[in-house]
Amino acid sequence: MHVVLLSLFPEALAPYLRSSILGIASEKGIARYDLVDFRDFSRDRHRTVDDRPFGGGPGMVLKPEPILDCVEWLERRHGSFHRIMLTPCGQPFTQERAGDLTEHERLLLLCGRYEGFDERIREELEWDEISIGDYVLAGGELPALVVTEAVVRLLPGVLGDERSAQEESFQTAGLLDHPHYTRPRVFRGREVPAPLLSGDHAAIARWRETQARARTRVRRPDL
Amino acid sequence: MHVVLLSLFPEALAPYLRSSILGIASEKGIARYDLVDFRDFSRDRHRTVDDRPFGGGPGMVLKPEPILDCVEWLERRHGSFHRIMLTPCGQPFTQERAGDLTEHERLLLLCGRYEGFDERIREELEWDEISIGDYVLAGGELPALVVTEAVVRLLPGVLGDERSAQEESFQTAGLLDHPHYTRPRVFRGREVPAPLLSGDHAAIARWRETQARARTRVRRPDL
Repeated sequence: MHVVLLSLFPEALAPYLRSSILGIASEKGIARYDLVDFRDFSRDRHRTVDDRPFGGGPGMVLKPEPILDCVEWLERRHGSFHRIMLTPCGQPFTQERAGDLTEHERLLLLCGRYEGFDERIREELEWDEISIGDYVLAGGELPALVVTEAVVRLLPGVLGDERSAQEESFQTAGLLDHPHYTRPRVFRGREVPAPLLSGDHAAIARWRETQARARTRVRRPDL
Repeated sequence: MHVVLLSLFPEALAPYLRSSILGIASEKGIARYDLVDFRDFSRDRHRTVDDRPFGGGPGMVLKPEPILDCVEWLERRHGSFHRIMLTPCGQPFTQERAGDLTEHERLLLLCGRYEGFDERIREELEWDEISIGDYVLAGGELPALVVTEAVVRLLPGVLGDERSAQEESFQTAGLLDHPHYTRPRVFRGREVPAPLLSGDHAAIARWRETQARARTRVRRPDL
């Protein structure tokens, strides 16, 4: 999968894309990331990408030309992308949507800043608008990394097969995770629950499911 | 505000904390960020922080000692923190919760990895568990940056006063944002809507509210 992130802060994102799971996916050749600063597509010598809003109001609006020129340049070079705009106005991101996005060969993630995008960016090209949650951030950079990580970790070969299978069962059940314990068996007087030490696989599975259901009921009755 | 992020990947997060709004907040002396690698609190020479789960199953579990030793060391040094654990089992993060978190002088954000935390980390100390959305990520690092950015941008002096006021009205209305337009007035044959060019402030406000309501009704009838 080829993932292109369009951002005014590429240097702030680069180290995260090289680390951990995302780094492993690119070392294995499963994912490739390109960071493109759409300020490079500004046409004036001040490298302007924003301007004051028609109708007045606070903040600046991202101009249509640099962003559309940048996207069109990328598509001439690589072919068309599944284009994603990260905005609080988008459809809420879910694990199911992450799974759907794994089907695309090329993703383009557009990160906004300031008050938002000139509306004609939406009118001129087709966008999949995604919101990662109902809170206000400074820009689309963190949402773009969230979507990238959620999607890339689902690509075959990035995690072990064992993990992937586990995950699918979690998704279908719609439950929060059960509690986990590791060594030591007694820590500050707190013992690992007996069923986990029993060696009885059916009893362990029952205990975990009961715990997951109880936790989901208390914390997220909406699920 | 003093924000401490506990993570196994501090070098992946550092550049983002220095950039844009978060960087401005620290340059102004309004926010201070510390990245702490809890692997430094491991007690063995292999610097182990995880181990296999009791009861079996895929993946590794974060051991209780390094994390609790790290938190206790930080609290002896700085005083107690409002402790936040980023997990998919947490309460959903919202703009209202971001506002509440601005009240704390010190935030500690614990980023998990692998299958999750040994349950005794939850039992031994009080945690505010936060989930940024119903999707699976590789760890708590991006959620910790999301929470940090949403909170820090609300601190007085980080954004201009004009922006802050605007934001409050957005929050109370519970509406998605209206469309924005900037120059040029005609772009690829697409014109800026006439009301925005009218100079009639009441007409502009009416147009924007109508647009915001229409967009919210179509895209997010749940709001």
